[in-house]
Amino acid sequence: MSKNAKRVLVAGGCGFIGSHLVDRVLKRSDVETCVVADNLWTGLDENLAHVRDPRLHIVHCDAEAFRSDIGFDEIYHLASPASPPWYMGDPRRTISANVIGALRLLESLKPGGRIAYTSTSEVYGDPLVSPQPESYRGSVDCTGPRSSYDEGKRCTEALLFEMRRAHGLDIRVVRLFNVYGPRTRPDDGRAVSNFITQGLAGRPITIFGDGLQSRSWGYIDDIVDGLERYFWLDQIDYPGPLNIGNDREISVLEVAEYVARLTGVGKVVHMPPVPQDPTNRRPDLTLARSLMPGWECRVPYEQGVEMTLEWFRARLTAGTAVAQ
Amino acid sequence: MSKNAKRVLVAGGCGFIGSHLVDRVLKRSDVETCVVADNLWTGLDENLAHVRDPRLHIVHCDAEAFRSDIGFDEIYHLASPASPPWYMGDPRRTISANVIGALRLLESLKPGGRIAYTSTSEVYGDPLVSPQPESYRGSVDCTGPRSSYDEGKRCTEALLFEMRRAHGLDIRVVRLFNVYGPRTRPDDGRAVSNFITQGLAGRPITIFGDGLQSRSWGYIDDIVDGLERYFWLDQIDYPGPLNIGNDREISVLEVAEYVARLTGVGKVVHMPPVPQDPTNRRPDLTLARSLMPGWECRVPYEQGVEMTLEWFRARLTAGTAVAQ
Repeated sequence: MSKNAKRVLVAGGCGFIGSHLVDRVLKRSDVETCVVADNLWTGLDENLAHVRDPRLHIVHCDAEAFRSDIGFDEIYHLASPASPPWYMGDPRRTISANVIGALRLLESLKPGGRIAYTSTSEVYGDPLVSPQPESYRGSVDCTGPRSSYDEGKRCTEALLFEMRRAHGLDIRVVRLFNVYGPRTRPDDGRAVSNFITQGLAGRPITIFGDGLQSRSWGYIDDIVDGLERYFWLDQIDYPGPLNIGNDREISVLEVAEYVARLTGVGKVVHMPPVPQDPTNRRPDLTLARSLMPGWECRVPYEQGVEMTLEWFRARLTAGTAVAQ
Repeated sequence: MSKNAKRVLVAGGCGFIGSHLVDRVLKRSDVETCVVADNLWTGLDENLAHVRDPRLHIVHCDAEAFRSDIGFDEIYHLASPASPPWYMGDPRRTISANVIGALRLLESLKPGGRIAYTSTSEVYGDPLVSPQPESYRGSVDCTGPRSSYDEGKRCTEALLFEMRRAHGLDIRVVRLFNVYGPRTRPDDGRAVSNFITQGLAGRPITIFGDGLQSRSWGYIDDIVDGLERYFWLDQIDYPGPLNIGNDREISVLEVAEYVARLTGVGKVVHMPPVPQDPTNRRPDLTLARSLMPGWECRVPYEQGVEMTLEWFRARLTAGTAVAQ
């Protein structure tokens, strides 16, 4: 075993984004062990079922309860639900997973080790500026129905940045904008996967409100390209926060209509708007482009949605789909 | 023992504001037991040394570690440092006291009991509107040097409001603006007590920056009048958030010069500005005035500062002052 071999912990590694990150970690030759801690609240074991790598060890536990006899060189904290119906359903646990999760995971960090955290564009709330640069302080209602997620993420950022300032903790913090693609739960509840599962079931596509609210849809492969470049490939010495996402702004309605056409459903139905649904969301990528030259979200949404749809279709055919 | 006798828990009850609140709790005839949980991080046992009431029980422990065999009807969560040098010195513990403190204290709440939380005007950050109504979402840098306090408070608000929405938790949340008065620690580090301890020691009064940043100085008695009216006296059925403070905006420089004159020091020295010191801070009290007619911060700062100075002088004379 090389002296430089790294021990890596991915909390939330059975999740949608977490499992893709694990795939990338396992491509590294300098990684000796990759431990995944996941309580399967929103993660799924099947997301890592394809892995045959003996370096991977999956532990089913809350991030807040994780303990280990070995220390880790790198910890990736992705343990959090990310979809409104999930986090709104258990706000206490959402805050706990993020904040107490971070505190607990830090106990397993080797001295001098690094902790990376996937924060969110939701720290900007319903933004009053567009696009949103990292310096934008956000417009979050800390008493509102999305606050367990938004404030849990903000508070965890605060914890990490303050532990960096006060104690020299080595941190990397990204703010992810909307991400979609294979391994999203069919019952995730967010727009793209909702539209696709509805379309594949031959049901009308439902959107909340007029659908004119915009999102920046980042295809998972592009997003994880950014994560691995920022987290280890490019050896970037910058603590964050760093926006990672697609800066092509698309309305929810446009995606819904596209999925309706693709699946032949043809019909889009409007539902009452969701409380405090952000009206717009678009990353300012100046910093990402400067730190990671050439990195972009290259997959156009039409192509990404089609690939995601094909993945869902194959999954349905294989009979492993979770009923929505 | 009356069936309606209340068991009350005050976390942070040995602190500056907490101890004054305990005094008010003990004036109630419907209170059977008042337990104070305080780790004496910033609280002082001497703040409750005057109490001879057998209903008072002081437990020295972190809010995060509190446990009790009895359930409480009312829990008041004031367990947090409130002064920048204290919370910036241990950001991890500050977040823990607020967020994990709240989660832990809830375990001791009787079913149907009420938890009240003292949040802060710091949830508004460096505000872009003045005065600040409760609906203002704030301008907080969640990666900045004040963020452990600001975001720890915001996240705890989110936790409580979301547990109210999702589970019907009975909550009361106040946002306190600057408070000063007797029982402030001499080494608290905030403006009024700094000026007074400097003046009484015959040292020049130091202010950070030009001193033109404004604050709304609320004298402790007025503030605790508001707290007891909101928390129990007026039987107000409103979860919060509720601004409580003085809406007379005074510059730091004006108070410094007043203390300099009172103590005969005469000299005010400017120090470099503190990072991210808010430029202004003033509560919109429309809601407080509507919920608690007649409540006001009545004590003008000149009188409040003089009373505070006399309290510090008497404490010094008694030889119990903590060296700054």
